[in-house]
Amino acid sequence: MGTIHLRAALAACIATLLVCVPGVAPASADPLPSWNDTGPKHAIRDFIVQVTAERSPAFVQPEARIAVFDNDGTLWAEKPVYFQLAFAADRIVALAPENPAWETTQPFKGILEGDLKAVTSAGEHGLLEILAATHAGITTSAFGEIVDAWLENAEHPTLHRPYTKLVYQPMLELLDYLRANGFKTFIVSGGGVEFMRRFAERVYGIPPEQVVGSSGVVAFETADDGSVTLVKKPKVEFVDDGPGKPIGINRFIGRQPIFAFGNSDGDLEMLQYTASGAGARFMGLVHHTDETREWAYDRTSHIGKLDTALDEATAKGWSIVDMKQDWKAVFSPN
Amino acid sequence: MGTIHLRAALAACIATLLVCVPGVAPASADPLPSWNDTGPKHAIRDFIVQVTAERSPAFVQPEARIAVFDNDGTLWAEKPVYFQLAFAADRIVALAPENPAWETTQPFKGILEGDLKAVTSAGEHGLLEILAATHAGITTSAFGEIVDAWLENAEHPTLHRPYTKLVYQPMLELLDYLRANGFKTFIVSGGGVEFMRRFAERVYGIPPEQVVGSSGVVAFETADDGSVTLVKKPKVEFVDDGPGKPIGINRFIGRQPIFAFGNSDGDLEMLQYTASGAGARFMGLVHHTDETREWAYDRTSHIGKLDTALDEATAKGWSIVDMKQDWKAVFSPN
Repeated sequence: MGTIHLRAALAACIATLLVCVPGVAPASADPLPSWNDTGPKHAIRDFIVQVTAERSPAFVQPEARIAVFDNDGTLWAEKPVYFQLAFAADRIVALAPENPAWETTQPFKGILEGDLKAVTSAGEHGLLEILAATHAGITTSAFGEIVDAWLENAEHPTLHRPYTKLVYQPMLELLDYLRANGFKTFIVSGGGVEFMRRFAERVYGIPPEQVVGSSGVVAFETADDGSVTLVKKPKVEFVDDGPGKPIGINRFIGRQPIFAFGNSDGDLEMLQYTASGAGARFMGLVHHTDETREWAYDRTSHIGKLDTALDEATAKGWSIVDMKQDWKAVFSPN
Repeated sequence: MGTIHLRAALAACIATLLVCVPGVAPASADPLPSWNDTGPKHAIRDFIVQVTAERSPAFVQPEARIAVFDNDGTLWAEKPVYFQLAFAADRIVALAPENPAWETTQPFKGILEGDLKAVTSAGEHGLLEILAATHAGITTSAFGEIVDAWLENAEHPTLHRPYTKLVYQPMLELLDYLRANGFKTFIVSGGGVEFMRRFAERVYGIPPEQVVGSSGVVAFETADDGSVTLVKKPKVEFVDDGPGKPIGINRFIGRQPIFAFGNSDGDLEMLQYTASGAGARFMGLVHHTDETREWAYDRTSHIGKLDTALDEATAKGWSIVDMKQDWKAVFSPN
């Protein structure tokens, strides 16, 4: 071992001392600095201590520390429409020159006239038409590149930031805090899995195989020259919402979570399934109460409706984050 | 920092020096001791060096180091029948007292008479009946416990070992070797996902969410008292075989593998999909050629048929493991 190797070894050694040894990190370091010192923060910290302290009666082995998060309205914002619908609308604008009939046909006409409500009010049939036009007929890799370019260039209509800068800073801290305590973190969202996977690793630190979402049918196709591709088809395969969430958790993750966070009625079954296991459990809801820094909505909202899940969370003593009161910051500063 | 912490720190420091610093590990350590010094071992080692050496033109970032493995016939044996079929047959024997009609009805009658061929010759309809009788009508957690008990107690009919001791020692070494080089290892198998997940972590070091397999429909059910369960239904949902393998990889993993290993025609599309990406790729087949230590079969076998994939692997120069010639050991010694 030469001098350079020795120096590298010493540097690694010092890094180990600073990072890994208990008692060296300053005791005051707060893993959740964007959370106010209120109920939800206490509940999260208490839960983590409870399941990770080795002598705790509620200790959970690291491999069973599974945490699931909804995406829209839980990890990033969802107003005025789900960001994936904004992507679909932008895609329709981009494809309009090749589809002149759209100028006179709903829901395309409304979207081309800049009416985002045309997307949300399109009904199931209209939504499937939008899906077929914007999420199908191309290879999975071509679709991924289109999503990448959109994420790079698109801007939220009122907050004027890239969509990936509209993730909630307190939730990023929570994801890090869980992982630092041996948890594996998963997204379990009604959003399209091939859409979310393009940014989940970079933005949330969640790799593609830990993203569970809705999906369309994909076909394996072999061309005449023997080359193979995966092609997205205009047919819904799986809707990862409501009861689909625990089903998706079972299918993709294969373990029951001990920690779940959502924000709407579509997350209720995921929270119920998480709560149904033995031992310590954490169930949380983000309640959008901050009309100044974000939006305030719940029981009557078309997007992110929170009604029966709010009642059940209240009745069962699950953690309810009052965004206005419990979060020091909403979005990351830059 | 007290004396005890200092000692712990020093111990961690020394461990770091021993484990992490290049040049300290003995240069002669062979990560694949159960592989003979023949073509496939050279090809594997060359590939790993090529994609991990930082200055290599074929260097691959750690997050893209995705390796996929078929299970039956690739990671563990598959004769005289797929082990999951042996499980199903044992399950039918266990459930027979509650199902007296089975004594006179095929395919159950044959199974109850100890004829394992009754399972493989049952045809699609018969197989679905076996599936419904043995893999459905119970909760996912009850099914998992049944699989656990079977794995604990069942024994292979001719080799007289627990099935989990019929995994291939060379492949266990390969899985470890890949992971030590920053790869994530996945199973992509036609086997049932809820069956394989019960032993994949313990036996292969592959956690549940990195197991992709065939699955049946699962329903989320709420009882009158509000308790919730996931119940397995007698309906096939996804067949992870043939073209289903690249589709399953896209759905569950969300990244194209750079390394794939199979053993039968059902793995061909997975190998083609892996080969179709840009940059360095490794495609391998286990060829069962060892009638003394294991079994010898290929083009005409009912189970693990290897015919068109063998031709394509030969034509394209993929690695073909001749089990008799290339493996020093087949199963682990104990």
